[in-house]
Amino acid sequence: MLSKKSIIDIDSLTVEEVSQILERTDSFLEVSKRDVKKVPALRGKTIVNLFFEPSTRTKTSFEIAAKRLSADIINFSASTSSLKKGESIFDTLKTILAMSVDLIVVRHNCSGTVKLISKTIDIPVINAGDGKYQHPTQALLDLYTIKKRFNDFNGLKAAVVGDIVNSRVARSDIELFKKMGIDVTIVAPSMLLPDNMDYYGTEVKNCIDDVIEDADIIYMLRMQFERQDRKIYPSVREYNKFLGLNTGRLKKMKQGSIVMHPGPVNRGIEISEEVMNASGELAGKLEIENQVTNGVAVRMALLYLILS
Amino acid sequence: MLSKKSIIDIDSLTVEEVSQILERTDSFLEVSKRDVKKVPALRGKTIVNLFFEPSTRTKTSFEIAAKRLSADIINFSASTSSLKKGESIFDTLKTILAMSVDLIVVRHNCSGTVKLISKTIDIPVINAGDGKYQHPTQALLDLYTIKKRFNDFNGLKAAVVGDIVNSRVARSDIELFKKMGIDVTIVAPSMLLPDNMDYYGTEVKNCIDDVIEDADIIYMLRMQFERQDRKIYPSVREYNKFLGLNTGRLKKMKQGSIVMHPGPVNRGIEISEEVMNASGELAGKLEIENQVTNGVAVRMALLYLILS
Amino acid sequence: MLSKKSIIDIDSLTVEEVSQILERTDSFLEVSKRDVKKVPALRGKTIVNLFFEPSTRTKTSFEIAAKRLSADIINFSASTSSLKKGESIFDTLKTILAMSVDLIVVRHNCSGTVKLISKTIDIPVINAGDGKYQHPTQALLDLYTIKKRFNDFNGLKAAVVGDIVNSRVARSDIELFKKMGIDVTIVAPSMLLPDNMDYYGTEVKNCIDDVIEDADIIYMLRMQFERQDRKIYPSVREYNKFLGLNTGRLKKMKQGSIVMHPGPVNRGIEISEEVMNASGELAGKLEIENQVTNGVAVRMALLYLILS
Repeated sequence: MLSKKSIIDIDSLTVEEVSQILERTDSFLEVSKRDVKKVPALRGKTIVNLFFEPSTRTKTSFEIAAKRLSADIINFSASTSSLKKGESIFDTLKTILAMSVDLIVVRHNCSGTVKLISKTIDIPVINAGDGKYQHPTQALLDLYTIKKRFNDFNGLKAAVVGDIVNSRVARSDIELFKKMGIDVTIVAPSMLLPDNMDYYGTEVKNCIDDVIEDADIIYMLRMQFERQDRKIYPSVREYNKFLGLNTGRLKKMKQGSIVMHPGPVNRGIEISEEVMNASGELAGKLEIENQVTNGVAVRMALLYLILS
Repeated sequence: MLSKKSIIDIDSLTVEEVSQILERTDSFLEVSKRDVKKVPALRGKTIVNLFFEPSTRTKTSFEIAAKRLSADIINFSASTSSLKKGESIFDTLKTILAMSVDLIVVRHNCSGTVKLISKTIDIPVINAGDGKYQHPTQALLDLYTIKKRFNDFNGLKAAVVGDIVNSRVARSDIELFKKMGIDVTIVAPSMLLPDNMDYYGTEVKNCIDDVIEDADIIYMLRMQFERQDRKIYPSVREYNKFLGLNTGRLKKMKQGSIVMHPGPVNRGIEISEEVMNASGELAGKLEIENQVTNGVAVRMALLYLILS
Repeated sequence: MLSKKSIIDIDSLTVEEVSQILERTDSFLEVSKRDVKKVPALRGKTIVNLFFEPSTRTKTSFEIAAKRLSADIINFSASTSSLKKGESIFDTLKTILAMSVDLIVVRHNCSGTVKLISKTIDIPVINAGDGKYQHPTQALLDLYTIKKRFNDFNGLKAAVVGDIVNSRVARSDIELFKKMGIDVTIVAPSMLLPDNMDYYGTEVKNCIDDVIEDADIIYMLRMQFERQDRKIYPSVREYNKFLGLNTGRLKKMKQGSIVMHPGPVNRGIEISEEVMNASGELAGKLEIENQVTNGVAVRMALLYLILS
């Protein structure tokens, strides 16, 4: 169903496509747990990781996903390329395409660039994050993480907490969660909200305490200091007071509820050191590492469904 | 015939060797069009990409070529290496060799360095471009591109246009074209010509209009701004007037003729934006992307003929 | 015997484990000499090269070792990672682990960091050098090099010459040589010795002439200019006078004796240009390239013994 399709934003994915991706992810999650973590599914395919922004987890996640599917993956980072010679992105893309590449994974710091790229070229593109716009594979891995814990999305209550305005994760996750029937509340002070809040059509709260007892999923966003033009964010003290997840708040969460974060966590800001170092039952609520594990499997599923 | 041979410059390649490379390229071009773009020919061989200059297309082209032949390829870029510790190139090479490497692909910003390297070490070296001296794999892919369009080299007229003095592509291409029986004319103002023009033994014209109607191949060189010591190049306005390829000139070219460029194109300088964005019959004259596609196949052929 | 074990320092390796590694190295050295330098032993394993310091030989050596065992290896260099976003090392490690990685090779500029890491995580870690503390795989490849030349360690006399205080190689090599029954003498002026020389329990000489005629192994250390806080090292002239290996001294060495160096050599400091360029019998004493060759095989043996 996803054959040859680009994954640019949540809007262009149907509920059926999302379900298909989640189902396929199950089998690939199992591959990563095997002794021999490799299947020959995409042998002889060439995938390019084209990253215009530095990245650890997403780039490595795609690289591992590709290798576990036996595909060849070429890492192409903008700083070492002939972009230094003043080549345009589109001429670079034409060059990559001319080498008979099967799929390109693109991250770019400008919103909309990946969409533009996907319209220009004839092979599938996966958006690995563009500016403040979208990060669809993050949303899919987050949704899969929720599915693993709750099985069913119906009636689930998610609170997305923090830096909404600067976060492509927020945009993709909120859209995908709502598309799949999860009830979403946004928790953020007005200074961290976009102007067009009607777009999301969700309830807004100003303090994490308003949702902490009732939410099934507390999704903590990363403060995107590097994407803030002006210093509009609250002070750390204020952040902790209204938005930060500490042990006291963690204990108030209802049974079976979970905490998610796209990583890397700003320790002491979004989540306290104490919570990050928690063990036992409290730590069991944190899904952060499972998100990473599921990320490899979701990306394997996407590459497989698009290319095989 | 190429067994264990280094590819350093055009001069040391015989006509028979060139023909053998072109023939072998046919079969590898077909591999890149398959669904499974991989053959086991060089499994268990270790190739090192040793680049002392930034590069997109050439480095990636070799990397993809090696992977499609199932070889292991190690990217070794000078800036991340222990060259920072003051190690000499030759000690670095000895280290690489001691790891039982089968072939080294070298790019270096100083003319002659790759030749020197090949004389120092016992394994095959492929010159991926050195200073203003040679870029033999570019010349071979260019020749292959011409062969695909014209089948026979005899009687073909090529015009090589632009920054002759700073271009290793010019040097390698002119030598190879002439070796294979193509008639070559150089088009450049005196400020873009080397002192020893007798070396080339070709006719020189000062304006692209002198060749545009008669040439089978218009080979546009990239202005090597990064290799110019002083600002000796003409202004963009002058360049466009005497050397630039625009739609008017493209339309004057005879039927079946082609335009080539080693890339990346300085849009608006060597070739106008309008030509670069052309579609239909006019665009059909541009071989730039085919050159890139053929580049992977030529490099596969070279690696295969040298190592298998 | 090494199953799932981390390799952090020499102290935690038993004589039996060391012997097992050396034995296994024999068979992998043979693999690197084959036409097809690849065995399927670690197919489907994922290894991460996590280097917080620039490195040529060690990083490439592990990369080649992993590929010759058919493992997937991910190069993760700190400068291109999200460590730029202020992520802690330990959160980075958690992320890597969550991607179902089988083994991490770590180099770090702070002594003790790799040990700390290995205590924090559940998968095997190999120390590829940390600060001034340890470089156990270097010591193992050095020991293997000695074994290849002398077969037996008993009664061998090794002199370790130069920058003891700044060298992790010195520390690991001296410990391992003594553990295996080699008699070790340190040659260094007091300014290049650590305060706690009792730790080593070896004789100390101040001039290479004191050992040159009697030693079976002259192990020249690299001057670690990059690790010296203050300019405490001797002048080049003084270094040459008391510690440098020149042709005169090389000729005084007894029959069958060898010269080693971890590389890269500071030519003209630890070893003279003349010695580095020697040929014939004199050059036959230099084991520097064999050390590199053996390094790949030792690392293959370690990866194999830990992971298979």
